[in-house]
Amino acid sequence: MNDIYEMMSTLRAVRRLRSDPIPDDVLDRVLQAAAWAPTGGNMQPWRVVVVRSDAQKQALADVYRPAWYRYAKGYDARNDQLPPEEAAKGRRNRAAGDYLADHLHEAPVILMFVADPKMMAITDAKLDRISMVGGGSVYTAVQNAMLAARTEGLGCVLTTLHCLAEDEVKSALQIPEDWATLAMVPLGYPVGKGHGPISRKSTETLAYDDVFGVAWN
Amino acid sequence: MNDIYEMMSTLRAVRRLRSDPIPDDVLDRVLQAAAWAPTGGNMQPWRVVVVRSDAQKQALADVYRPAWYRYAKGYDARNDQLPPEEAAKGRRNRAAGDYLADHLHEAPVILMFVADPKMMAITDAKLDRISMVGGGSVYTAVQNAMLAARTEGLGCVLTTLHCLAEDEVKSALQIPEDWATLAMVPLGYPVGKGHGPISRKSTETLAYDDVFGVAWN
Repeated sequence: MNDIYEMMSTLRAVRRLRSDPIPDDVLDRVLQAAAWAPTGGNMQPWRVVVVRSDAQKQALADVYRPAWYRYAKGYDARNDQLPPEEAAKGRRNRAAGDYLADHLHEAPVILMFVADPKMMAITDAKLDRISMVGGGSVYTAVQNAMLAARTEGLGCVLTTLHCLAEDEVKSALQIPEDWATLAMVPLGYPVGKGHGPISRKSTETLAYDDVFGVAWN
Repeated sequence: MNDIYEMMSTLRAVRRLRSDPIPDDVLDRVLQAAAWAPTGGNMQPWRVVVVRSDAQKQALADVYRPAWYRYAKGYDARNDQLPPEEAAKGRRNRAAGDYLADHLHEAPVILMFVADPKMMAITDAKLDRISMVGGGSVYTAVQNAMLAARTEGLGCVLTTLHCLAEDEVKSALQIPEDWATLAMVPLGYPVGKGHGPISRKSTETLAYDDVFGVAWN
């Protein structure tokens, strides 16, 4: 028995992964968890490419590494504005991010979640703001997969920076032109202790009572 | 102990909900589960409005009901094309959807998940396709909340049709103009047996081996 609340409350981003292989039955349970997720109209418009070959992992690492170091410049600038304690935490996260970018090709598995917009009814597509609802039929599956990874003792992290070079990713993994890439999740056993305490806002901050802005509790 | 795989594999859409109130400690655990979810840069750009007053629930029902019946016309048209067994299942889903639309205001709680795009780094914003990545920092929390609801014996379903009248929803719940609404999740104890077996594609269909299109296993 793996308690669901224990898994949720200790699922943290693990960016330092060992290269040891993941047994097939473990990987199957992670994929099965993704398959159980709800999607709009039960259409399951997503697929996941389980990337394991050296060549394909290297192709993804070649896309991710420069995207990370470009992103990290802005990250450092913002981090330098923070109070000392938070800034120190930011620097630790930066170092972990650098590690992932430098070692991504060594992860035993990289999951690439893709989806076909034609299989979705995207209700916010015509609004005068950026659309997000398409993600509602994919990130439910990504979250299930990550919770399963944590349950199996695997480290993982949800990344999206590969979208900055989506064409290269699609070319490398032979993803059809009209499909979208939504999440890249490296999977592997943790170098360190892996999962553990997480830092999150309180429900008093995140939840509102009946109308926006009225604090819960 | 609530086994995570049991919860995931029995989390189905429950659209017939009793009006009985949900105890505060149960609701707190559902909200806490949402709060634990990972988000991009740990920014937690989402908030959830816990709608419980009759007036606010009625306002949401007034938006949802016509949106559902407009959507259902297309649903029926597609359903009529299916083989008899699937069509019969489609008609059962249609009836459950009608029930939800007609009784939404009676649910004890409706969760409305909202998010601020300014707190997100949306990496697919400039691509030549509809954006979906913003959802990656919200639907992880929605999925956690739904898994917790199932764990607590509550029925729930992820809906997005309210986006077709998002301005009215934002006005009713006093949501700021620049925030987006991503998911409406009615919560309540089930009228029937509630959660149980789910119908999903196999991992052989959903997962690919190393490149898109090569079946897993």
